[in-house]
Amino acid sequence: MYDLIIIGGGPAGYRAAELAARGNLKTLLFEDRSLGGVCLNEGCIPSKALLYSAKLYDYAKGGAASYGVTCENAAFDYTAAVRRKDRVVSMLVGGIESSLKKSGVEILREKAVIQGRGENGFSVNSRHATNLLICSGSEPMMPPIAGIETAMTNREILALTEVPASLAVIGGGVVGLEMASLFNSAGSNVVVYEMLDKIAGSFDREISKMLQEDCERKGIVFKLNAQVQNISELGTEKVLVSVGRKPRTEGLGLESIGVHTERGAIVTDEFMKTSQPGVYAAGDVNGKFMLAHTAYREAEVAINNMCGKKDMMDYSAIPSVIYTNPETAGIGETLESAAAKGIAASETKLPMQYSGRYLAENDGANGICKLVFSNNRLIGAHMLGNPCSEVISTLAAVMHARMGIDQIKKIVFPHPTVAEIVKEAVYHA
Amino acid sequence: MYDLIIIGGGPAGYRAAELAARGNLKTLLFEDRSLGGVCLNEGCIPSKALLYSAKLYDYAKGGAASYGVTCENAAFDYTAAVRRKDRVVSMLVGGIESSLKKSGVEILREKAVIQGRGENGFSVNSRHATNLLICSGSEPMMPPIAGIETAMTNREILALTEVPASLAVIGGGVVGLEMASLFNSAGSNVVVYEMLDKIAGSFDREISKMLQEDCERKGIVFKLNAQVQNISELGTEKVLVSVGRKPRTEGLGLESIGVHTERGAIVTDEFMKTSQPGVYAAGDVNGKFMLAHTAYREAEVAINNMCGKKDMMDYSAIPSVIYTNPETAGIGETLESAAAKGIAASETKLPMQYSGRYLAENDGANGICKLVFSNNRLIGAHMLGNPCSEVISTLAAVMHARMGIDQIKKIVFPHPTVAEIVKEAVYHA
Repeated sequence: MYDLIIIGGGPAGYRAAELAARGNLKTLLFEDRSLGGVCLNEGCIPSKALLYSAKLYDYAKGGAASYGVTCENAAFDYTAAVRRKDRVVSMLVGGIESSLKKSGVEILREKAVIQGRGENGFSVNSRHATNLLICSGSEPMMPPIAGIETAMTNREILALTEVPASLAVIGGGVVGLEMASLFNSAGSNVVVYEMLDKIAGSFDREISKMLQEDCERKGIVFKLNAQVQNISELGTEKVLVSVGRKPRTEGLGLESIGVHTERGAIVTDEFMKTSQPGVYAAGDVNGKFMLAHTAYREAEVAINNMCGKKDMMDYSAIPSVIYTNPETAGIGETLESAAAKGIAASETKLPMQYSGRYLAENDGANGICKLVFSNNRLIGAHMLGNPCSEVISTLAAVMHARMGIDQIKKIVFPHPTVAEIVKEAVYHA
Repeated sequence: MYDLIIIGGGPAGYRAAELAARGNLKTLLFEDRSLGGVCLNEGCIPSKALLYSAKLYDYAKGGAASYGVTCENAAFDYTAAVRRKDRVVSMLVGGIESSLKKSGVEILREKAVIQGRGENGFSVNSRHATNLLICSGSEPMMPPIAGIETAMTNREILALTEVPASLAVIGGGVVGLEMASLFNSAGSNVVVYEMLDKIAGSFDREISKMLQEDCERKGIVFKLNAQVQNISELGTEKVLVSVGRKPRTEGLGLESIGVHTERGAIVTDEFMKTSQPGVYAAGDVNGKFMLAHTAYREAEVAINNMCGKKDMMDYSAIPSVIYTNPETAGIGETLESAAAKGIAASETKLPMQYSGRYLAENDGANGICKLVFSNNRLIGAHMLGNPCSEVISTLAAVMHARMGIDQIKKIVFPHPTVAEIVKEAVYHA
């Protein structure tokens, strides 16, 4: 008999397990694949390792010349980069496993099926627990395109050990753009097919356009408003499908305990509770933000509430990043999304070149920082330019603290940093 | 007749001038050298441009190989890097000049001498103003070493157009370490002489040691507890003196208005007021933090108070960075400084490898993140590892907002970022 059974060992599941064990809950975690989930094994981490190799290759190929650094016969041993990526993933998976064991979490390497609720609480694979936390994650959506079964998903593309001569990417969102950037740098001819009139999903429209233009200068071809009918029409060596993900709820036995779902996603409230008392869900399976860092936070909220410590999920200050080169990052409302919600907002924007460090380290690049304010409070921030993935955390802290313009002005940013652009932009507001 | 005369066009002076003009003060700025001061012309910015070139050269020389990227005959055209550095500086100086002119600030290219106070207010080079803001900056300290007049300061070393075969650095603080790192990468044999038993000044002791070991692995030699008597004993092609800076107050005519100084620094209060009504001072000349970003903030405080808007200087959340490769950054108290002040504090530390992105982008590197807490509130943070210069801004925001541990835990950091190490460390506190 356990206090808690967790289904799924991805970001939500392993985070929750560690916290639960530290909170003295007797915890059992089910994971039938590798710990760390999609994010660690076939998503965020492997892609970042490979993208960094690609970035260094861009410099070696000639990108460093304007900085006074040259070399000859630049080569990208993609197989070596993949081996390194695998080592990074192994280290992190090993870290999670040892951390969970040290915390006293039991791990069962089985596919979990919920078998109902009885006197002994919830039953999962004949184990019993008072509480249940479902973190079964998500899987790629496969659009109705003829031949789609021959396409790669994030999993297969990150397992490639050779660079394809040509790559078609169906879906110009985060995953599609990162893979397009990676293989373009590595030498593939890349074409991105996007159904909408812009790339980068809900990212700021102006920034999406700037990013597209930058990618085009590097040789990536974009087809917007594109409806692919048949894989064979693409005439390409490899095809990646990256049109989005859907919650993994099938085959879990949810019906045995009557947990409410909507369009395949488990419905959760701000405490991460489902329709059934004692049953929580966190991460992609609730179909909300589908980002690892949202999953972490949801897991924390679920466990805190389970342990009687009140905590609520706040979705208003969750950053998103696309790790193309240059990176783009955003948080909160854009002017467009604010208008759609009827929020009166204003925007201030500055070229990233206002940051001396950006200028020193990004030769010829074309970045931007946009801040969105409402009632003198920051409600959104959107940036293009390296390393905005790291700068956006400052804005997450600022938005979390609900700082007003006058308060942001008093933060002392170190000089010279790219992060200073935030203060510059606030002063121009 | 002006509302305000500003003496010095460095970070404090140009920031103040812009804000004053926007606040409708008729403003005159004196600067006899290049706008932007030491920071922009012979300090922060040129060093960062060159350090980035050096970083790329490190990769080209073999640092990229573990990422799968190789090349041959890597070369560092230092003269080209210097030309690029000069272009970056010119662009930024030009930006300041045009921004000041657009704001309506008058600029006089003369050395300013205060001539007393009369019926027309303060008199400076026969111009008159109601208020005076002194931002005359600082200059290198020259220790009593025989032959010191042959040594370079920050100004001369950043103007070099060739890489010396050997370089002795007297003073292992921020400037000394950055130049040691730059010229070590560029190919010089570098020896650093430090009078104290540790490098990196008031930076955390453990981190200073780790940084020193890292630099030693790259070939930099350190002589601690070293008292250099004579430049000639160093037997080196070039010598840099970087033992600190002192306020520039001589020849300004301060005595004509009776402004109080202590050990050569103008004494200021938390409103940046001096001992004389109507006279303010900001930046290095007050001898406090001697950092460009402190100068910016002090300038803002001075102008706000001049315009009747209450504002106070808070020195408790000012970050510092050393842009070696790897970078180190710190803010607030160390455990050691807290103990010296009688503050009960505890420390939590984590290897940077707990961040997946750090692991993905920093092969074989050895970083650390240390957080210092007192009464469940963050009072200091200290990091070694790229790009902590950008991550430290998040901690500046957190400390500025005086967040408690429970609040920091709720900030959503994007995954995967190096900044996440902060959240990991907080969860381990």
